[in-house]
Amino acid sequence: MRSVEPVAASTVAAFDHECDVLVVGFGCAGAAAAFEAASAGARVLVLERAGGPGGSSAMSGGELYLGGGTAVQKACGFDDTPDDMFTYLKAALGPHADEEKLRLYCDGSVEHFEWFRDRGLTFNESMYDAPSWMPPTQDGLMWLGENAWPYDTVARPAPRGHRPATESFGGWMIMDKLVAAAKAAGAACHTDTRAANLVVDDAGRVVGVVARQYGETVTYRAHRGVILTTGGFVDNEEMLAQHAPALLGHGKVSDGLDDGDGIQMAAAIGAATRRMAVVQIAMSALPAMLVRGMLVNALGQRFINEDVYPGLFSVAALQHQPGPYWAIVDEEGYEDIPARDLWGVRPTFVAETLAELEQELGMPAGALETTVVTYNRHAERGEDPYFHKAAKWLRPLRAPFAAVDPRLGFNPGDRESAGAGSGASGFTLGGLHTTVDGVVLNNSGQPIPGLYAAGRAASGIHGEGYISGTSLGDGTFFGRRAGLAAAADA
Amino acid sequence: MRSVEPVAASTVAAFDHECDVLVVGFGCAGAAAAFEAASAGARVLVLERAGGPGGSSAMSGGELYLGGGTAVQKACGFDDTPDDMFTYLKAALGPHADEEKLRLYCDGSVEHFEWFRDRGLTFNESMYDAPSWMPPTQDGLMWLGENAWPYDTVARPAPRGHRPATESFGGWMIMDKLVAAAKAAGAACHTDTRAANLVVDDAGRVVGVVARQYGETVTYRAHRGVILTTGGFVDNEEMLAQHAPALLGHGKVSDGLDDGDGIQMAAAIGAATRRMAVVQIAMSALPAMLVRGMLVNALGQRFINEDVYPGLFSVAALQHQPGPYWAIVDEEGYEDIPARDLWGVRPTFVAETLAELEQELGMPAGALETTVVTYNRHAERGEDPYFHKAAKWLRPLRAPFAAVDPRLGFNPGDRESAGAGSGASGFTLGGLHTTVDGVVLNNSGQPIPGLYAAGRAASGIHGEGYISGTSLGDGTFFGRRAGLAAAADA
Repeated sequence: MRSVEPVAASTVAAFDHECDVLVVGFGCAGAAAAFEAASAGARVLVLERAGGPGGSSAMSGGELYLGGGTAVQKACGFDDTPDDMFTYLKAALGPHADEEKLRLYCDGSVEHFEWFRDRGLTFNESMYDAPSWMPPTQDGLMWLGENAWPYDTVARPAPRGHRPATESFGGWMIMDKLVAAAKAAGAACHTDTRAANLVVDDAGRVVGVVARQYGETVTYRAHRGVILTTGGFVDNEEMLAQHAPALLGHGKVSDGLDDGDGIQMAAAIGAATRRMAVVQIAMSALPAMLVRGMLVNALGQRFINEDVYPGLFSVAALQHQPGPYWAIVDEEGYEDIPARDLWGVRPTFVAETLAELEQELGMPAGALETTVVTYNRHAERGEDPYFHKAAKWLRPLRAPFAAVDPRLGFNPGDRESAGAGSGASGFTLGGLHTTVDGVVLNNSGQPIPGLYAAGRAASGIHGEGYISGTSLGDGTFFGRRAGLAAAADA
Repeated sequence: MRSVEPVAASTVAAFDHECDVLVVGFGCAGAAAAFEAASAGARVLVLERAGGPGGSSAMSGGELYLGGGTAVQKACGFDDTPDDMFTYLKAALGPHADEEKLRLYCDGSVEHFEWFRDRGLTFNESMYDAPSWMPPTQDGLMWLGENAWPYDTVARPAPRGHRPATESFGGWMIMDKLVAAAKAAGAACHTDTRAANLVVDDAGRVVGVVARQYGETVTYRAHRGVILTTGGFVDNEEMLAQHAPALLGHGKVSDGLDDGDGIQMAAAIGAATRRMAVVQIAMSALPAMLVRGMLVNALGQRFINEDVYPGLFSVAALQHQPGPYWAIVDEEGYEDIPARDLWGVRPTFVAETLAELEQELGMPAGALETTVVTYNRHAERGEDPYFHKAAKWLRPLRAPFAAVDPRLGFNPGDRESAGAGSGASGFTLGGLHTTVDGVVLNNSGQPIPGLYAAGRAASGIHGEGYISGTSLGDGTFFGRRAGLAAAADA
């Protein structure tokens, strides 16, 4: 293990570089922080380990969870409010979402949407109205579970998945614009530069960073603040074992450099962490397939309405149910899956009877049959009294049947494990404990002078749930706030 | 929030008290550490916040998870081995149990059992062979889930719940003996003394503690080491919110002083923590009732064999299934519960038909009936192909039926919430990251000189599961090792 222990400022004879605000990590949170700090007049320097900016943000699908009445929502005919957005996210990111951060995030969401447009992103004013991880269109708006039970009973549903118009991956497009904006505002960037240790003065203030650059040690002095936007720790097996073992053995949604070094550098000087065990983990299962059939556990039991945001059915399965899991579809449902071949969906088992299928799946005799008979009896009346899947998806399933391994297929966020390994992949949501302005707190609940964090290096708006677009969303939103706060730090 | 920041040794003009090994907290881990350090010739001082020793350990039921071939096991006819013990605990405390600590714990278990006898505890050489949280007898041995599926398929079952002979609570008896042993070995104790901050010298070594005693500040110098045995953090709502929100709103199994201050004092100087989200949480449900019927979730689905260690069915319900949960029993099963009146079991609903009962319980029509019909069909053949409850408990359930709220009744470990609140209670299992000798590690994986921890202030043998007797068990086992290591620390 590398040493993340702090360096005393008194031992640094002369700093190689000086700035006002030093941002560590040039993903979405770093870019947002750098833009705001530079726009506020601070001399900003961004350190990036890789050969260029982008980080894991650039590899994401590019959904932005925004709402409360954005121009795209209005153009598509939805009359959203910050309160409905807050109520939905509190439930879907819960239990135990951070209500203070969430309130600010929702109240500021329309402004934040405009901020993205002002940075040069465009959003088509059209809606993709079908279940999908990532629509195969350039529609600017999509559902992310807002119209599924029980969320539709607590908040007025409105789609809030905002997607920049691009023929490439949305994440890359977003980072392209934000990096350009940060640079245009005056931020400089040192690539191939890995921050290794925080520099702390005698009063306990963070005043800089010691970094490694092409095998050399380079020192950076930050007069107003250091902002850690180094990402989560899914790429650090040791940290996963200590804090988030649920991700061990699964694929990683990352650029391969999310090793938690920023979290550890800060913890080494007594920074508090928060919710380090919380993860998002997703099966690659095709949502358009699941809504047309059912998702069952190893015992043939259903356990969730299949039309929720697919991250939620993934977590419900992987963290709470005995596996393996199976998508059960009939021929009509299977044929009806849009772009089925594009996604590479293939039945694992096909059978003329449920008795035959449950035997193939190693389930107790009668287990799957009981579930399907019950489902069909209610579906005939357009009802799902167990899990309340929307009536539009309810239809009795008829022979022949197929069982599809929901871990197979295409998952846009997953670069490492698609089609291999566990068939599931994820990332971490825990991190440094920060105020709404990104100030890192110590274990006594007090600010650590000069130290800020945002993005997945920090614990954000999330409780124990996750919805697409909330990482790019809270990373940029609280990255901006951290940049402004650091720029104003005496 | 109280400040837990360290104090520089250079600022302490003169220490009020000096010793070789300073133990902070006089529960089971502290007593074991103090005994061993004092027996090794160190001058030992134990600080205790409360007016007397004991801590949460003294309020526990007093089970000790021990095995591998103890005298009590042999006398009761069981031929146990450390390997079987390891294999069972790895599964039941898993996933992600700490295999290095667990291996030592199992290999050393017979010696550790004799250590308890040498400290004056007696264990009756008789077995209580029925499901129970705490047997109403003085039998020295009980099952703690070893004979339940799937554990009985991976390791040869042997009962390992060891219980000291006492007419009072076992936890009190254990602490009485261990405190006396520590004192007899030469350890002194300052009660009503609350450690507040670690004292650290210029080289980063922990050399003492600043404490509060009757409103005054008192300083302690430890020449060889400070051992934190301050317990977990179930009594600190703020820490629960940051790290283990699953326990928010539930009862607390503690003496009311488990506020995590030792963990935070150490984290403030850069100590690493581990698995801070992991908790044990238990419903007060009577095991003898559940095995005679079934445990179902809010949708009338079974989800576990009811004859597992009751902590496991509690976690399976509370952390993974939609509630409320119900114990479903028939008249014959209900009448058959031993000492039913003693435990205060009362049916919540009684009905002549399952249709009536499931309506009372607000379940989808047919939900409970489907489950019971399926259960009965298999039970007639002595089988439970879904969850593999032992054949001795399998019998078709016949009208009339009762639904009993499994959160009601008597839970020996729970002093606060019995019969009130959520009806479930628990404690934390995460804490400081330590070596097998109790050395606290920093975020770079290096030892913090002079700092040790054991008991629930540290992360122990546990993964995400829990079995009774493993807290007193690993607290004393690794407390002893920490005491020996600190006594030998130059």
